[in-house]
Amino acid sequence: MSDRADTVVVLGLGLIGGSLARALRQAGFCRRLVGYGHREPSLRRGLELGVIDDFTLDLDEAIAAADILVLCTPTLVAAATLEQILLRLEGRADGPVITDAASVKGNLLKAARGACGGAFPPRLVLAHPIAGSERSGVEASDAGLFVNHRVILTPVAGNDPAAVQLVRDMWRSTGADVVEMAVAEHDAVLAATSHLPHLLAYALVDALAQSPASTDIFRFAAGGFRDFTRIASSDPVMWRDIAIANRDALLAATDAFSDHLAQLRRAVADGDGDTLLETFRRAKAARDEFAAMLKERGQTGH
Amino acid sequence: MSDRADTVVVLGLGLIGGSLARALRQAGFCRRLVGYGHREPSLRRGLELGVIDDFTLDLDEAIAAADILVLCTPTLVAAATLEQILLRLEGRADGPVITDAASVKGNLLKAARGACGGAFPPRLVLAHPIAGSERSGVEASDAGLFVNHRVILTPVAGNDPAAVQLVRDMWRSTGADVVEMAVAEHDAVLAATSHLPHLLAYALVDALAQSPASTDIFRFAAGGFRDFTRIASSDPVMWRDIAIANRDALLAATDAFSDHLAQLRRAVADGDGDTLLETFRRAKAARDEFAAMLKERGQTGH
Repeated sequence: MSDRADTVVVLGLGLIGGSLARALRQAGFCRRLVGYGHREPSLRRGLELGVIDDFTLDLDEAIAAADILVLCTPTLVAAATLEQILLRLEGRADGPVITDAASVKGNLLKAARGACGGAFPPRLVLAHPIAGSERSGVEASDAGLFVNHRVILTPVAGNDPAAVQLVRDMWRSTGADVVEMAVAEHDAVLAATSHLPHLLAYALVDALAQSPASTDIFRFAAGGFRDFTRIASSDPVMWRDIAIANRDALLAATDAFSDHLAQLRRAVADGDGDTLLETFRRAKAARDEFAAMLKERGQTGH
Repeated sequence: MSDRADTVVVLGLGLIGGSLARALRQAGFCRRLVGYGHREPSLRRGLELGVIDDFTLDLDEAIAAADILVLCTPTLVAAATLEQILLRLEGRADGPVITDAASVKGNLLKAARGACGGAFPPRLVLAHPIAGSERSGVEASDAGLFVNHRVILTPVAGNDPAAVQLVRDMWRSTGADVVEMAVAEHDAVLAATSHLPHLLAYALVDALAQSPASTDIFRFAAGGFRDFTRIASSDPVMWRDIAIANRDALLAATDAFSDHLAQLRRAVADGDGDTLLETFRRAKAARDEFAAMLKERGQTGH
């Protein structure tokens, strides 16, 4: 691919930002990759690793250098940084295309409208790559992280179509499968499939760790427990931010789950084997179908 | 190892029974392996695969042939079969050593006492290998299934020490790490680390499958969801049985979890980032420690 952009500035050079930079370099999507952040050591490490060509600790410099600004910081920092950027640009139409990689979209939409007096900035294109790892930091970055993974764009009515196309092209160049969705739909789907499971895994592990028998409990846990609780090893700050940012959708998903668990609890208490068997069979069928689908699109789906 | 027993009879030749037979043959623990069950095709398949030397569909024959009888059927079938065996033996002291591989011990203890007029049969040694797979059936059996995995024996005061030693030797010969625990403790620990996680995974997948947006939900779920829900692909009959058999401990574990989830829900609703961060950090530390422990004992612990 010939250069689609001159300079891409990545704000927050962690696992996602670093992996995006590596993937864009590998694809030849842009001429120059610049990192921006508060923590000089990780930016310097990114430079040493060849992930970026240059870095800056100055937001004005980052904005001035960029054809595309990509916010790859934790969710709440992304909202605050987006506000700062939009206030500095004061609605200029020739500013950089701005996009992000955060896990929640509704709070960024609100932050953007707040910073622009209620209007949506046309060159801001919200996006979310569905990829990650329990590992974090630029050291763990990987040019192949997005290959065969979904990236969800959530364009809105006021968006500049050329800006949406540029962001779409950027993610496609990483090997990702780019799809579009409404902001509210995105936040509800992610609450159900990602944010709620993290909350449940954290709740379970913490409940067990605080029980008097915790030593025995962990001594005798096995493979199923390991897989079930793997996501409880995820970055606590990242998930604190997501839980706060996606409050309403996460509460709705939690309540739907709790109602369902209460029904199963009742069946256990009543010795109602038919309800248990019917529910477990339905769930197994849905889970097996999901695993087959993941396998089909090239992710290990066992 | 020289033969420790002449004939081991495996009742229920599925994943666990088949894997035990293969492991005992590999270890040279006994001279002859016999399968017993209701389904002739899977017994015949076991014979073809060389997992067993012979099979019978007759329980009296199975009892007469055995030095050791191992119940490897689903949990509720194990309880019913154990009752039948004990009634047929009528308290004979020269009968076979009887053991099992079921996931719950309290219901078997109760069934045994019921069949023996309140006394515990001295040559019955309850046991639980902590190993498994979402796969099932004798085709999936594997001589290495128990290597480096825990097997929990739950001997009681009335047990014949020689019978306990024989069962301990049998499991050690498979490469397992044999430990002992009280029946009630076993059932509480397993409820927390295995039975409750299965209930949660089934509840989540079924709640999502029944939601109006289920197609989108599964389309956009990713690796974290795959790991978290893997156990929802487990055998529904097996887990129906376990939920019924371990009712009281499972209800207690479910309630402790639900209280904890309610606390986290409140923190999300209140935007209480400090409580969320503190809980997530505690859970991550416990999960990381657990993963390190699993790794140390030779199971993949990522």
